[in-house]
Parts: sequence; C-alpha cells; structure tokens
Amino acid sequence: MVCIYVNYQILKCNKRVCISVLLARFDFTQGILERLDAGEIVIGDGGFVFALEKRGYVKAGPWTPEAAAEYPEAVRQLHREFLRAGSNVMQTFTFYASDDKLENRGHTQRFTGQQINEAACDLAREVANEGDALVAGGVSQTPSYLSCKSENDVKAIFKKQIDVFVKKNVDFLIAEYFEHVEEAEWAVQVLKTTGKPVAATLCIGPEGDLNKVSPGDCAVRLVKAGAQIVGVNCHFDPETCVKTVKMMKAGVEKAGLKAHYMTQPLAFHTPDCNCQGFIDLPEFPFSLEPRILTRWDMQKYAREAYNAGIHYIGGCCGFEPYHTRALAEELAPERGFLPAGSEKHGNWGSGLEMHTKPWVRARARRDYWEKLKPASGRPFCPSMAMPDGWGVTKGHADLMQQKEATSQEQLKALFNKETARC
Amino acid sequence: MVCIYVNYQILKCNKRVCISVLLARFDFTQGILERLDAGEIVIGDGGFVFALEKRGYVKAGPWTPEAAAEYPEAVRQLHREFLRAGSNVMQTFTFYASDDKLENRGHTQRFTGQQINEAACDLAREVANEGDALVAGGVSQTPSYLSCKSENDVKAIFKKQIDVFVKKNVDFLIAEYFEHVEEAEWAVQVLKTTGKPVAATLCIGPEGDLNKVSPGDCAVRLVKAGAQIVGVNCHFDPETCVKTVKMMKAGVEKAGLKAHYMTQPLAFHTPDCNCQGFIDLPEFPFSLEPRILTRWDMQKYAREAYNAGIHYIGGCCGFEPYHTRALAEELAPERGFLPAGSEKHGNWGSGLEMHTKPWVRARARRDYWEKLKPASGRPFCPSMAMPDGWGVTKGHADLMQQKEATSQEQLKALFNKETARC
Amino acid sequence: MVCIYVNYQILKCNKRVCISVLLARFDFTQGILERLDAGEIVIGDGGFVFALEKRGYVKAGPWTPEAAAEYPEAVRQLHREFLRAGSNVMQTFTFYASDDKLENRGHTQRFTGQQINEAACDLAREVANEGDALVAGGVSQTPSYLSCKSENDVKAIFKKQIDVFVKKNVDFLIAEYFEHVEEAEWAVQVLKTTGKPVAATLCIGPEGDLNKVSPGDCAVRLVKAGAQIVGVNCHFDPETCVKTVKMMKAGVEKAGLKAHYMTQPLAFHTPDCNCQGFIDLPEFPFSLEPRILTRWDMQKYAREAYNAGIHYIGGCCGFEPYHTRALAEELAPERGFLPAGSEKHGNWGSGLEMHTKPWVRARARRDYWEKLKPASGRPFCPSMAMPDGWGVTKGHADLMQQKEATSQEQLKALFNKETARC
Amino acid sequence: MVCIYVNYQILKCNKRVCISVLLARFDFTQGILERLDAGEIVIGDGGFVFALEKRGYVKAGPWTPEAAAEYPEAVRQLHREFLRAGSNVMQTFTFYASDDKLENRGHTQRFTGQQINEAACDLAREVANEGDALVAGGVSQTPSYLSCKSENDVKAIFKKQIDVFVKKNVDFLIAEYFEHVEEAEWAVQVLKTTGKPVAATLCIGPEGDLNKVSPGDCAVRLVKAGAQIVGVNCHFDPETCVKTVKMMKAGVEKAGLKAHYMTQPLAFHTPDCNCQGFIDLPEFPFSLEPRILTRWDMQKYAREAYNAGIHYIGGCCGFEPYHTRALAEELAPERGFLPAGSEKHGNWGSGLEMHTKPWVRARARRDYWEKLKPASGRPFCPSMAMPDGWGVTKGHADLMQQKEATSQEQLKALFNKETARC
Repeated sequence: MVCIYVNYQILKCNKRVCISVLLARFDFTQGILERLDAGEIVIGDGGFVFALEKRGYVKAGPWTPEAAAEYPEAVRQLHREFLRAGSNVMQTFTFYASDDKLENRGHTQRFTGQQINEAACDLAREVANEGDALVAGGVSQTPSYLSCKSENDVKAIFKKQIDVFVKKNVDFLIAEYFEHVEEAEWAVQVLKTTGKPVAATLCIGPEGDLNKVSPGDCAVRLVKAGAQIVGVNCHFDPETCVKTVKMMKAGVEKAGLKAHYMTQPLAFHTPDCNCQGFIDLPEFPFSLEPRILTRWDMQKYAREAYNAGIHYIGGCCGFEPYHTRALAEELAPERGFLPAGSEKHGNWGSGLEMHTKPWVRARARRDYWEKLKPASGRPFCPSMAMPDGWGVTKGHADLMQQKEATSQEQLKALFNKETARC
Repeated sequence: MVCIYVNYQILKCNKRVCISVLLARFDFTQGILERLDAGEIVIGDGGFVFALEKRGYVKAGPWTPEAAAEYPEAVRQLHREFLRAGSNVMQTFTFYASDDKLENRGHTQRFTGQQINEAACDLAREVANEGDALVAGGVSQTPSYLSCKSENDVKAIFKKQIDVFVKKNVDFLIAEYFEHVEEAEWAVQVLKTTGKPVAATLCIGPEGDLNKVSPGDCAVRLVKAGAQIVGVNCHFDPETCVKTVKMMKAGVEKAGLKAHYMTQPLAFHTPDCNCQGFIDLPEFPFSLEPRILTRWDMQKYAREAYNAGIHYIGGCCGFEPYHTRALAEELAPERGFLPAGSEKHGNWGSGLEMHTKPWVRARARRDYWEKLKPASGRPFCPSMAMPDGWGVTKGHADLMQQKEATSQEQLKALFNKETARC
Repeated sequence: MVCIYVNYQILKCNKRVCISVLLARFDFTQGILERLDAGEIVIGDGGFVFALEKRGYVKAGPWTPEAAAEYPEAVRQLHREFLRAGSNVMQTFTFYASDDKLENRGHTQRFTGQQINEAACDLAREVANEGDALVAGGVSQTPSYLSCKSENDVKAIFKKQIDVFVKKNVDFLIAEYFEHVEEAEWAVQVLKTTGKPVAATLCIGPEGDLNKVSPGDCAVRLVKAGAQIVGVNCHFDPETCVKTVKMMKAGVEKAGLKAHYMTQPLAFHTPDCNCQGFIDLPEFPFSLEPRILTRWDMQKYAREAYNAGIHYIGGCCGFEPYHTRALAEELAPERGFLPAGSEKHGNWGSGLEMHTKPWVRARARRDYWEKLKPASGRPFCPSMAMPDGWGVTKGHADLMQQKEATSQEQLKALFNKETARC
Repeated sequence: MVCIYVNYQILKCNKRVCISVLLARFDFTQGILERLDAGEIVIGDGGFVFALEKRGYVKAGPWTPEAAAEYPEAVRQLHREFLRAGSNVMQTFTFYASDDKLENRGHTQRFTGQQINEAACDLAREVANEGDALVAGGVSQTPSYLSCKSENDVKAIFKKQIDVFVKKNVDFLIAEYFEHVEEAEWAVQVLKTTGKPVAATLCIGPEGDLNKVSPGDCAVRLVKAGAQIVGVNCHFDPETCVKTVKMMKAGVEKAGLKAHYMTQPLAFHTPDCNCQGFIDLPEFPFSLEPRILTRWDMQKYAREAYNAGIHYIGGCCGFEPYHTRALAEELAPERGFLPAGSEKHGNWGSGLEMHTKPWVRARARRDYWEKLKPASGRPFCPSMAMPDGWGVTKGHADLMQQKEATSQEQLKALFNKETARC
C-alpha cells in the first residue's frame, strides 16, 4: 500500500517559539512490527462501544457490535474520525463478537457472528485505505471462559473469528480485554496460527489479573505464548495503565525476553478502583461523566506513556476523537507531524486567540490549561467512590452465562444483594 | 410531507409494570406552531459546534460552521443521530455563519457564507425527510453588534442568511444565542419579514441580559417583536434555564400576551455561573468534562421543563445524542412513543440486565441511578469555580472585532490581565 | 475602672515591612457606647456552648449553661482564653438560662436559673477585671415564645434574668439569638428598663427572620425599640452575616435612624444554608468539623466586617480562642496593638520560621496561607449539603415545648419523617 | 493509690435496647503493665501542643511546652478535661522539652528545661490523683539527632529529662514521636535505666521510618531495646496508624517476641500523606480544620484499634477532649463503664432528644450519624492535597538546627524553593 500524506502545520512548543513544519510523507505503509522496531510511535484508536453507545448504536449491557452490520455509516464515520485524529490503527469493531456473547441473556441478533465480523473488517479496511493506518482484527474475553468451558471450547470460539480475519486479510491481530491471563494465552495461541503479528492486552491493574498473577508474570506468559506486543487496555485510567505496563516491561526484561508495549486506557479518572477496574465503580456505566479526561489530561498521558517506553499508545472506553488527537498532538515533536484533525485545533488552546471575548482569548496558552484544576459543578457529589467489590470471580454461580434473559427472580436477588451492601 | 412511523417498544414505568406500546403513526407532518398549539411536546436537537469540535470538524475559538460545506458526511451523521435520538427539529448548522463572523480575527474560509448556509440547509432537509422532523433556519448574535455597528448594518447581516433560508424553504426560523435583547429584537424583526414562524432564544440567566433587562421584560419585548416561541439557549445548565424561562413566562402572562416556550440549555452543570454564563467559567471551553450531565440529569431536566409549561425542549453545547434520547425517553409516557434510538437503550438502565457481571445487573433499575451521586475521580479538584467576571460588555475596546489575527502584543496584554486577577 | 496595659509587638504588614509597636495604654475603661462612638473597634468573644461542649461541660441538645455553677473553673478558663485572645467583652454564660428552657423535655437541673445566672455574672466580672473588657449580660430566645405564650409571659422570663444582671451590675446588655424580630423587640423593651446600653442580634440571614421580615425592617424595629447596637449572631457563616448586617445598616440609614452594628457569626462555612441557618444542615451539630474556619478565614471576615462599617466584631458557635485572636490580629494596624495571646503567634504564620523542617519554614508568609485552598482529606464526602427544610415554625405542634422527655413514640414519628425525606 | 469511682449510666446499644449500668469501682490503681496484662483497655490522652495552640498558650513553629511553667492553670485545665473524657494516662507536657529544642532558631525561654519538666510533672500528678489515671513522663525526638550529633550527645539530652521524671516519680515512661527508629532505640535504652515500664512510639506510617525501615522491623528493634509497649503516634490519621501498628504486631509476632500495642494518631484525615506524614501536607499546621475528625470517626477508630488487638488507645495532635470521650464511649460495653464526661453527652447523639427543633430531635440516633457523609461547606477547595515531598532527611544542610533565628536570606531561599515546586 502506498500512502502519500501531506501536512503543513505550525507547531507551538512550550517555549512559545513557532516552528513551521512542512511534511510531505511518501510512505510505503509498513507493518506494525516494522514500525515499532524502527522506533516509531503508533497511535491507537479509541473504544467503539462507549462512543457508539452515546451516539445511539450500541446497547449498554450486552455491549455487542452488531452495528457494524446494522448501521455501517455510523461505524464508518467513527473510524474516519479516529483516523483524522491521528490513529494509525483501525481496529475491527468486533469486540464481544463471539457467538457465545452475541446470544447471551436474552440478547438475540438479526445478524450472524460471521456477518458482523465480516462487515467490521470491510469498514476498517475501507477507512484505513483513506490514510496511514493498518487494520487490526480483535478478539476479546468470552462468556464461555467465565462459565468454565474447556480450553478447546474457548479456543474454538476464537477460531471462528480468526477465520474471518484471515479471509479479510487484516494486517495484524489483537487479543484484548482479558481479565485472566490464562484465557489470553489461549487466545494468543490461536491467533499465532495465522502467522500474523499478535498483540495481547489484559484489562488489569498493578494488582494483576483476577487470579492475582502479577503484571510482570502475565506479560512473560503472553510473550512466551507468542505475543510480540503486550500491554493493558480498558478498566483503568491512563495513570494506572502506564504504571501497570511499566511493571509488565520490568517483568519481561527481568526474564530476558523482548517485546513491544502498548496501552489503551479508559478516558475516565479511576483513582478509586480496586482490581476489577471501573466495572466495580458505582458510576459504571451510566454516570461516569464527571470522570471524563480533558484533552490536557490526555497529553499528559501520552507523554508519560512515551517516557515509559510504551510506543503503541491508544485508548479504550470513553475516548472521543479529540482525545486521540491530543495524543498525536503531544507527540508531534517526536513524530514530526500533526494529525489531519489538528487543522481544527490549535496547540494548547491557541485557537482561542480567535475568540470574540477577550477573557477567553486570555486562555490561549499552555500555562493556563496545564495548571487548571477543573471544577465539577457538582457540590453535592463526592470526589471518590467505594467500588462494589462483590468478590465474584470465574466459576461463581452468578457468573454462569445463560441464553435466556435474566429473570425477575434473578434480578430481585441481585437488587437485594446490592442494597444490603450500602 | 407524509411521514409513516412505526415504533414498538416496551415502556417500563417507575412501578416496574411493563407496558407494551405499539405505535403506527401515519402523520401528515405539521408545522411547529400547529404542533405546539395542539399541546405536543417538541424535542429539539443538541448543539453542533461542541459535538463536532470533539469529532474534529469545528475549531474552538472561531466556532464557525464551515464543516457544513467541508465535511458534509460528518454533519449529516450528527443530524441523523439526533433524529434517531428523538429530535423533531433539524436546525441548520448555521451558527455564527454570518460574514462578519466568518472573517474575524484572522479566520479565513475556503467557502463563502452563502455556500455554508446553503449546504447546511440541504443537510438538515435531507435528514429531516428521513423521519418526523422539521427544518429550522438559525441566526445568532453578530460581532457587528458587539462592535457597535448600526441597526441597519446588523439587520443586513441577518438578511443575507434569511435569503438562503427562504430560498431553501426551511419550515421555521430561530433567532438564538443573543446576549442583548435589543439585537434579538432586530433579528426577530428581520425573520418576521419571511412570513415563517419565528422562535427567539436569549443566552441569559435569571439576572437577565447583559444590560440587566430582566427575563420577563426580555420575553415581552421578543413577543412584541413578533416571536411566537420564546426562551433561552446555551450559557447555563438546565436547572438555571428552566428557572429563567419560568420568569419569561410569568412576564409574558403578566403583560397579557401569549407565547410558546422553549429551552435549549447546556449539558454542563453550572451552578457557579454569573450573568455571563459558562463563558466566564475558567474551564470554558477545554476543561468542562467534569461538568457533563448524565442521562439521568437529563431526564430530570425534561420533567422539570415540562412541568414548567415548556413544550419545546432541546439542548445546546455539550449535548450528545444520548442526552437528547434521555429527554425523549423521560417524556415517552406523555408522548406515547419512544425514539428510534431507544432500541439500543433500556429505560433507567434496564439494558444492564444483560450484563455479564452480576453486580452490574444489580444496577438495572431506576432507584439505583436516581439516587447515585456520581464521584468525579478528581480528588485534587474543587467542585465549584470562580467565574472570570471581567465586566467587559458591548462597546468595550477589547470587544471590538477585527479582521486581522489577534497580535502577540494584544495577547500579552490579555495574559497579564488574566494572571493579575488570580 | 483603671486599666494599665502594656504590649510590645512586631507587626508585619503585607509589604513585609517590619513595624515595631510599643504600647503603653493607660486607659480608664470606657463603656461600650463611648467606645463605639469614639470609633473604636470592639472585639467580641466566641460562643460558649459549642466550645464547652467539646471540652465536656455542656450537653448538646439542651445546650444549657449550668456549667457556670457546676464547673466554674472550666468556664473561667474559657473566659480567660478569649480575654487573652483580644476580646473586649466578657459575655455572661447565660445563653438559654431562662427557667422555661432549663426544664424542657426532661432536662432537670441541680441549680436554679437564678444560681446559674449569678454564677455566670461573677465569672465574667472576675475575668473582665483581669484585662480591658466589659461585662455583657445576655438573654436569648425562649421556648415560651415558640410555644405561643403571651407577650407578658415571655417578658416575665426575660425580667427574671435581667434582675440578676442589674444586681450584679453588668456593663451592658445583649438580646441575642432571636429568630423572630417580634420576640427580640419584647426582649429589648425589657432590657431598656434597666437604663443600661442595649445590643440586639437576630440569628437571621439575608432572607430575614422566620416570618420573612427583611433584615432592614428588622433592624429598624430593633432600633425603634431602643437598641443602640444591632446586628446578627449565630446560624450563618461570617460572609453571610456581614452581608446581612449590611442590609440592616442600609435599612436603618434609609429610615433616617442611627445605630452601631455588630456581628457574631459561626466559625463554620455555611454557603448551603436556607433561612433557618445551620440548624437545618444535616451535619448539625455533631459533624460540622469539615466546615470549621481557619484563622485566615477569620482575618478575611474581620477585614470585611470592618470595611462594611461594623465595629463590634465577635463570634458565636465554633469559635475557639485562636479564631478571636485572628480578628484582633487582622485589625491590629487599625487598633494600634495586638492581643496578649499574640505572644504565642506570629503574624501570618511567621512563627513557622522557627520550625525544624525547612519546607514548613517556607510557609512562614502571608502569600502562602492566603492563597491556599485547604483540602478536606475526605474524598468520599460532598462539599455542600441539602438543608432539611421541614418548614416548621412558631406555632407548629412539633415546636410546642414540654417539660417531659421526648417519648419513644414522639421520636419514632420524627425518625420516620426524616427518613421519608431522603 | 486507692481510687473509688462510681458511675451510673444508661448505655444505648445498636439495637436500641437500653442497658443500665451501675458501676461501683473500688480499684487499687494498678500500673500500666498490670492493666494491659490483665486485658484492660487503656485510654490515652490527646496531644497538648495543638490543643493549647488553639487556646493561646503554645506557639506553632517551635511547639515547645513552656506553658507548663508559664500558664499552669491552662495546662491543668486541659489535663482535667482529658481525665473527665476518660483518659487513664496523664502524659507530662514535656514534648520537645529538651534543652537543644528549647533554644533553637532564635527561640529563647524564660524558664529552664528543668523548670518546665518539673512543672509538667507536678501538673500531671495533681490531676491524675483526681481520678483513675497514671502519670507518664515523655521524651521525643531531638534536633541534635537531625543535626547528626553523636549517640552519646543525644542520649545525654534524654538523660536530663529522665532525671526529672525519676525525681518526680512518674508511673511509666514514653519515648514518642520518633521519625528514625535508631533514635528511638537510643531513647528506650536511656529510659530503661530507670527500671520503670517503657512505651515507645514512632511517628511513621506503613512505609516505615525515614530510612525505610519497615514497621515490623522497627517494632522488633524497639522491643529488643526494652520497650514493653510499642506503636505509633502523630503524623497520620487513625486509619493509617491502626494499619501501621498491625504491621508492627505482625513483625513482633513473627520474630517470636511479645509486646503490648498502642496508637496515638492525629485527629485529622490524612489519606493523601506520604511517608513524612501531615508535616508535608500543604495545610500543616494552620489550615487543617477541614480534616478534623468527628466524634463518630473516633468511635470507628476505637473499634478498629480494639479489633486489631491494640489496647492502649489514645490520640495526638488535633484531639480535643470530646474526641477522647468518643473513644471511651465506643469501648464502654467492653470496659463496663462510661467516662465522667458522658454526663454531658448521650450515646450516638441521644442528647438531641432534648433539642427544641423537631428535625434535630430526628437526628438522635446512631443510624443517622453513622451514615452521614459530612459536607465541607467549601466548594472551591479540593478533597485531597499533594504533599510537599522535599525529600530532605537527617543530615541535609537545611535540617541542621541553629540557635540563631532563621535569617531573611535563609527564608528567601526557602520561599523560592517552595514556589518553584508549584
């Protein structure tokens, strides 16, 4: 694939010195490993389920990606926005697109799993070809694992998705959002059969996976299973994710192994999480708004991830295109160019120089935004929450998945349990 | 125009009684006044500049709508999402699309004002025809007025936009986002020449316009100028806006006049605003995230607006499609139907019944979400801010608009002023 | 009475210029009106019931002052601390020392009302004679008024306390803590019969008394009844109290009358109060700690009160001696001397210059403390609360006082009422 | 010493069952070790320097206890209040009463160290004899150690204080407020020469002493040095202190040793501290008010400490007598009696049953206070702070103590350092 990419921007660095950058990039688009091996920074995209939920195309609860087949124009538009924001990876919208998840707890689909996976691949490829991006096929944790199905059963589920990815010739594969390193290893083993590069991310924090396997040990196991890129995604805020990947990196290096590292954190502040991540926060998933990161929080994240040796820097739930653009803008000095979307943005608020009100023009500077501690406008709310912490993990009866809808009796039992806790 | 609209949904009311609603609506789409006269609730859309800024198509600072011509697919998609969320009005994306604004402070355009206004009309009409929605052409306050130009000059600016709206045959007109009732009156006078229904909204709070004209007096003047629908938009949170429109309604009724009422508030909590609204908050416009309303806050707003006798209920900056959907869902019992987008949403979180984790299924109920006081995850931030309050209004030298970019000297003077304040 | 008072201190003003002040004051102690007429600033003391509750000598609930007779050494010590902190008034510890209050709701006393009032006068005089202070006899609102007793009955209660004050020859009288201006007028009328100077304070905010009589009208009525000093005490924070007294002053001046003004606010931040004051806050009285003012908040209060023309500046519930000292220190430049207690305090933290840790020595300056926004260390708590607002006022059955203890049935009814509200 | 102690109280337990307790205790007052060996709970007192600073008798900065000699009536009164609140230990007010501290950084005394130490012993004994309390002589960390003086020099300083304690025949000794376990060991070694029981507390948290010696290792070293009671005091909130002492206990038990355990935490919430404790918080020492614990927080602390096997439960800076009373009230069921001060307090707010306002009577119950999350009334303040963290420890030039006052040049250098950090 040949990509011709021209970009002209004025970069404004910390010292208020203006640097003009004329970029004419005539790249033969390279694979993910070639890029990372060459020391390039790869900007990932953001999470699709939350972004499309807000737009009306994904249902919170099942969180399944049937919109790829049902509402392709909405999915295509979101891909385009992330591309424009600077993403180098179009991840297929195939999160939870395994058959055992698509038909869980009364959820039924108008489309087969295969149709959804295929549609998602086509959309990702279509938009990737419009810019400098690769297509990544993604698989994620399965209800079957939580319900204690066998290794073979779980692997068969991954295999069905992989077959589509191979047929659609994605550029590389990502096994993401695993709470148990064991299931992630199984996924990596299946993905490796394709011969394509494999990335693997767990949704864990510094305390490790739900069996308390440490981040360092998790990473070593994933690398040994064949993953060339390892890291974390979802469940925690950027600060926690960078901290966790640092522990992974230390573990891999101590074991004498090598890998590339990635982070795809939430766009929500979660200093109050326990090991289960934001799922346990009382605000999940419908009252997380006060926790949403600003673009300046994102620039801080990009810098810290980069300083930690993480070169694949993306996002997950809560990311909107402007968050991703902030990552690309922060690292523009290192990368030498700004994303296309920066034509509608100035560095550190410099677009405000054009505002009609003088006191808003006075905010057109880094110093202002970097120091600001934004108010919540919610004086009756606390700043931190107590996570639920039910302590229910794989194998517990309440985690057994079922095809039928949750019954009223089942719900009532859960409501009582929740209320008793308070 | 004939609209056939079929919708089947399960409404779940407070009492957990399930009500099935089968709707087959064969409507001849009626005008805005016929609807309001008949007691219908009209759901407005949300603000486009903030939503498209997050998606990468609008530049914060100038806040101009050239994307209507430049990136029509992005604007069309946002219209579609609001339609799907339940909006009955597709407002043309022509905010700040007057020539004096499009070429302000060094901002130059690849498209003429006329091209932008025409493109915006076409997009709104295209999507409106896909559902049960009207097209409203919108004009807003002008830099010319702030710079003390004459009544004739300001009216000529409105006239240019109106000419496009007439040519494109929009269904009705909105004069919105006026800080001074005088300028709004001028706008209404121009809009009235078209013979189309006219709505007028000020961006004011309970303290009145920037000349301290009270909400009641403002409303009376707008009605006398010919507006059939009056209210407020932008600048304040729903609570403040409903309070202000109540004062308008009381003023109009006291004067023995009649009108319909509308609110299009922010989707940000702003209890700490002064009369200038959220522009004065230190977080404007790049760190407002912690203030974003949840869907449950929106349901509360819809109910309070309706109880106050406001029947045109919409939104402004910060609204995402799910916010609008929440308005339509809250008022579904009164309206008898749910919006199309509710297929991907359950009332009061009932979609969570399908979640894999039992403690999240335990949140599938109104009582849980209604009582929750969401944490910010930001323990180092305050809950309220001190507004800037520079006290600069129409006629002040710093408010004079200029074609040239703000110079470095001008900026430096503003930066010093801002810093001295702290 | 002759007072010889020598004080030598180094005042450190804003500009870091050191001013040595040698004071040898040979004063004939003058009366309260002579002082105020001469333009002197009079520093009041702080509230005794809250301070002694923390020390273990007052019971929250009845809030009665029997400790004056029971534990005189504890009351004497608190008087001494306020004197040392700079108070020019030793108010007799006779709050709620009326017979109808002393025997209310099952509360019985080992001492008669007369014994308590006499002991309180003796203690106040003993300590006042140790320094430059006057003795003020105080009466406060009565359960009888709330229970709709007649004017004669209520006045008779005041008369009993007054008789002691006359016998013990206090220097002036204060009618304080009235929620209804009518009862305060009755009190002033009784106090005036003594021929001593009379001050009168209501526990009201800007909304006026519980019958919605405005602060301005209240003040006019009190002045007309004969009070030479008027103002507010208790129920609200300093900011609110200064605002309220400003309204009183404007009312008195508009009526062509003359008076001196005083404030004795809480030492708690109460931005979230309604007209009933801090009694309605859910934290009253046992969880108010996070609201306690710092000494720097107090200096701000002293300055604002003084700037508003209030020259009798004291405190109420929550005040500890260091709060009062802060008032005296802030106004030392105007008064020309520091209080005795300042020997153990440096202006604006300058005592920290002697701290062993260098980073604490770095805090020995005004700029540091004035800008600091102190954290609560309570991330799970909100910053504002919703007041109770039961809307129960004089005459309501629940406000009828009774000699017998509140019964279990009565309590249960109240508990249910409170819980239903949440 | 013979103590006859009669107390009659109504205990109200969780279940609202009333339990009458008639206590006639005819005790021969026993030593501290006999009590702890017998499984008794010993209630300590609170910190004197903070309490007396608020009352005007201690200067923040030097924090020295000359008031024992200068203002004995104020010190005696505070002892009495703690005794009345339930304290079984009257600790001599000899904190920082070593000669090298009394004459540090320009601080000079009118009294010799010996005079202060003797006066403090006399006051403690006088009040202890009024009730069921022991006298403990206390020594604390020295500027000499921070300035790298020799073991012999430092021990000589402790020896001077000890000589007074022996002469005055205190009941036992406490080495408290040590940041370095090494200095605490030296102190214990000196204290052991007296033959009296020895307690030793460090002002450390879970991260250990300033040389990163873990709590477990610290405790083992103190026990091996001869301390019979070990624990922590000051610097951290109760939650952190209990956690730290648990680690100490685990360390001692793992080493096969035996000890009794004590905690004397702050009465301030400090979840945001680093290893240096509240000294590093920006609010130290003059803006800590929003962090003050409520009485209910104290009851929680008492319960948790007791559950952790800590039987000597006291307090430090920030404690007022009502905080100590709350400890004694919480543990009244275990101890079988209430403190004398409870005559002015009802369990869990039951005194409010006598309040005049019905909605306050509705708060007369445990359930209300235990669930309340108290608001700060400070919407412009954060809930947590960033500690200073200068990383300056023993041996650093800035920590060298000097007899002369801190010079203006020294201050300026510190101010600059502090400002640069922000």
